[in-house]
Amino acid sequence: MVSVIRRASFSASHRLFNPAWPDEKNARVFGKCNNPNGHGHNYTVEVTVTGDVAPDTGMVIDLKVLADIIEKELIERVDHKHLNLDVDFLKGVIPTAENIVIGFWKILKPAITQGTLHSIKLYESENNIVEYRGE
Amino acid sequence: MVSVIRRASFSASHRLFNPAWPDEKNARVFGKCNNPNGHGHNYTVEVTVTGDVAPDTGMVIDLKVLADIIEKELIERVDHKHLNLDVDFLKGVIPTAENIVIGFWKILKPAITQGTLHSIKLYESENNIVEYRGE
Amino acid sequence: MVSVIRRASFSASHRLFNPAWPDEKNARVFGKCNNPNGHGHNYTVEVTVTGDVAPDTGMVIDLKVLADIIEKELIERVDHKHLNLDVDFLKGVIPTAENIVIGFWKILKPAITQGTLHSIKLYESENNIVEYRGE
Amino acid sequence: MVSVIRRASFSASHRLFNPAWPDEKNARVFGKCNNPNGHGHNYTVEVTVTGDVAPDTGMVIDLKVLADIIEKELIERVDHKHLNLDVDFLKGVIPTAENIVIGFWKILKPAITQGTLHSIKLYESENNIVEYRGE
Amino acid sequence: MVSVIRRASFSASHRLFNPAWPDEKNARVFGKCNNPNGHGHNYTVEVTVTGDVAPDTGMVIDLKVLADIIEKELIERVDHKHLNLDVDFLKGVIPTAENIVIGFWKILKPAITQGTLHSIKLYESENNIVEYRGE
Amino acid sequence: MVSVIRRASFSASHRLFNPAWPDEKNARVFGKCNNPNGHGHNYTVEVTVTGDVAPDTGMVIDLKVLADIIEKELIERVDHKHLNLDVDFLKGVIPTAENIVIGFWKILKPAITQGTLHSIKLYESENNIVEYRGE
Repeated sequence: MVSVIRRASFSASHRLFNPAWPDEKNARVFGKCNNPNGHGHNYTVEVTVTGDVAPDTGMVIDLKVLADIIEKELIERVDHKHLNLDVDFLKGVIPTAENIVIGFWKILKPAITQGTLHSIKLYESENNIVEYRGE
Repeated sequence: MVSVIRRASFSASHRLFNPAWPDEKNARVFGKCNNPNGHGHNYTVEVTVTGDVAPDTGMVIDLKVLADIIEKELIERVDHKHLNLDVDFLKGVIPTAENIVIGFWKILKPAITQGTLHSIKLYESENNIVEYRGE
Repeated sequence: MVSVIRRASFSASHRLFNPAWPDEKNARVFGKCNNPNGHGHNYTVEVTVTGDVAPDTGMVIDLKVLADIIEKELIERVDHKHLNLDVDFLKGVIPTAENIVIGFWKILKPAITQGTLHSIKLYESENNIVEYRGE
Repeated sequence: MVSVIRRASFSASHRLFNPAWPDEKNARVFGKCNNPNGHGHNYTVEVTVTGDVAPDTGMVIDLKVLADIIEKELIERVDHKHLNLDVDFLKGVIPTAENIVIGFWKILKPAITQGTLHSIKLYESENNIVEYRGE
Repeated sequence: MVSVIRRASFSASHRLFNPAWPDEKNARVFGKCNNPNGHGHNYTVEVTVTGDVAPDTGMVIDLKVLADIIEKELIERVDHKHLNLDVDFLKGVIPTAENIVIGFWKILKPAITQGTLHSIKLYESENNIVEYRGE
Repeated sequence: MVSVIRRASFSASHRLFNPAWPDEKNARVFGKCNNPNGHGHNYTVEVTVTGDVAPDTGMVIDLKVLADIIEKELIERVDHKHLNLDVDFLKGVIPTAENIVIGFWKILKPAITQGTLHSIKLYESENNIVEYRGE
């Protein structure tokens, strides 16, 4: 069993706010992340797939194939988008890094059919990171 | 003459579009950077100040002082903001990296009174960078 | 269950030596890390907290809150300090990266009351890293 | 139990191809990695050793000792080499990152006698990474 | 006048040797870079274009256009190639970083028609870098 | 004319203080950098040498030779040292990054006899950097 990890990046904007709360509570809880016009990040996503190494290719999953899946399933849906307004799989959730990574998991899990999706790590900035293992 | 360089980061959203153009031309020229709801970046700014080294401090300009100027004059105005909507010194210009760095220069030039502002470099992403020397 | 990871940095000096050993053995075992006047590093610490995502905030723990805990509990005690001489929670231990990260765990464990402290990673340099999970 | 992680780098060339396949299939499966004259990478390897902290040294394993083992056992055998042609422990396998990291594990496992080898991570590039835990 | 900088990466192998020299001198001068079967690197190239900012686009040169030029003119010719054997514009020169960057300049100079090519920086590894300004 | 750049790192401790000043003024001017027991950094130095490319080697200066000069002339004198107490060429100056880089210049200038020393850049941390060109 070897783990294969592929990284990719995208640029997006978002705004943290809970529509069930009054403005004052949103501002207090989310601070500057609650700025009404939003703000943005260069996100980096790191996808780990675990499996046996096929003897005839020497691979768990072809990294080009994995890169293409990530590009098509994730990056094209979120790159240069507003995560609150433009991304259907994030509708109805607050687009924190935690909720984005859970949304990514739901999309990637069925899309990866060679090896097993093991974890997804999402860097919102160099210092703020989340990781999800589907459990 | 030694150059002193201080780096700082901020997260912001923006949208590239020229209000004098029809939507179709904006979409064609600016591509996905023209997304109506905007997108965002983790920007990094690198400010270079050049001058003589004061013998009693061993410094061109105290890096803490330079960091405080950058924080107060630049970062507080753009961090967690929408560059088209929330930043007065970018009103009326298209917030490309080029125009942001020129705007930063106009603010920092008079604010740095120890040593001389030499250049400002702005990383929009790891691969897209601009630099301005005031000339 | 999502893991949230926050990074922070500090600059400190230290000296590796065992007061129970003669100078010659200290020099032999610790090599240049035994330099009598000490040396130093820019350390980076990476704190992982694991927990459920609260539906009303979309967060395991607010990253600003986690950042403030790390700043107050760890960074203020070690930044711009000599780890052998200035840091009470390292008194009596050799300040290797291993012992620093164990010391950090003892301080952070009771301080994190939202989610569960899962691991602490400490980079002494780009190439020398330790990790502790409290076990 | 603390984990100690040491990073090291090497530069090597390789070519992905399966001698049991016709050229056309090799070209289709391995794409540009199948270029007949090969291509190359700056690889980074990250070795994790887990164990108890010895009270008299404050260490799981001396990072200089671990660095020396990695240098002698791994780096000297692969640095500035062609992985298909010059490296005996890779003879007969396709030198994908997966097979290289398994080869590294077989060499390092018996060579590390202080603490226990826990995992080896290999970066083929910034975006393509594999990890192996010997299981 | 603003400078715009675009980064791109490629993976290639090469061998340093001078066909006019006996093997022994090649081995002595080029050391392990003379390994007969070659070795390789992940190269990063950084292209700087300087010019005026067009008022209607806010750009010196569209970074997507610059990225496409770099991709088509440089990366496609060298990525996953052996620089001694597969790259026509390097035929007859020793493919040191110095000669590669001069070769890149000759190709890019006429290809960049918006703004002026100012410099090209080439990272052979994190620690070995060259820069050329066409002078 | 091509520029060749070589990077190297060292770990050292230092304390900023001016012996001609009372303690109170030292504490006020240098802040936490004045901590009596010192603190430390992982410094990175970047040395740029400019010159013509020799046709028979394809090099301005052999990067291994440049690396060896930096190692012998700079790194061995400052690595794992206390810059105020252990380094003779910094005796009598306040070891700010500015003064360290000037000290490095005086040592390297006569030691580099192939090509011309063009500049030295010193990273005290990721965000605090100085550069000197000998003028």
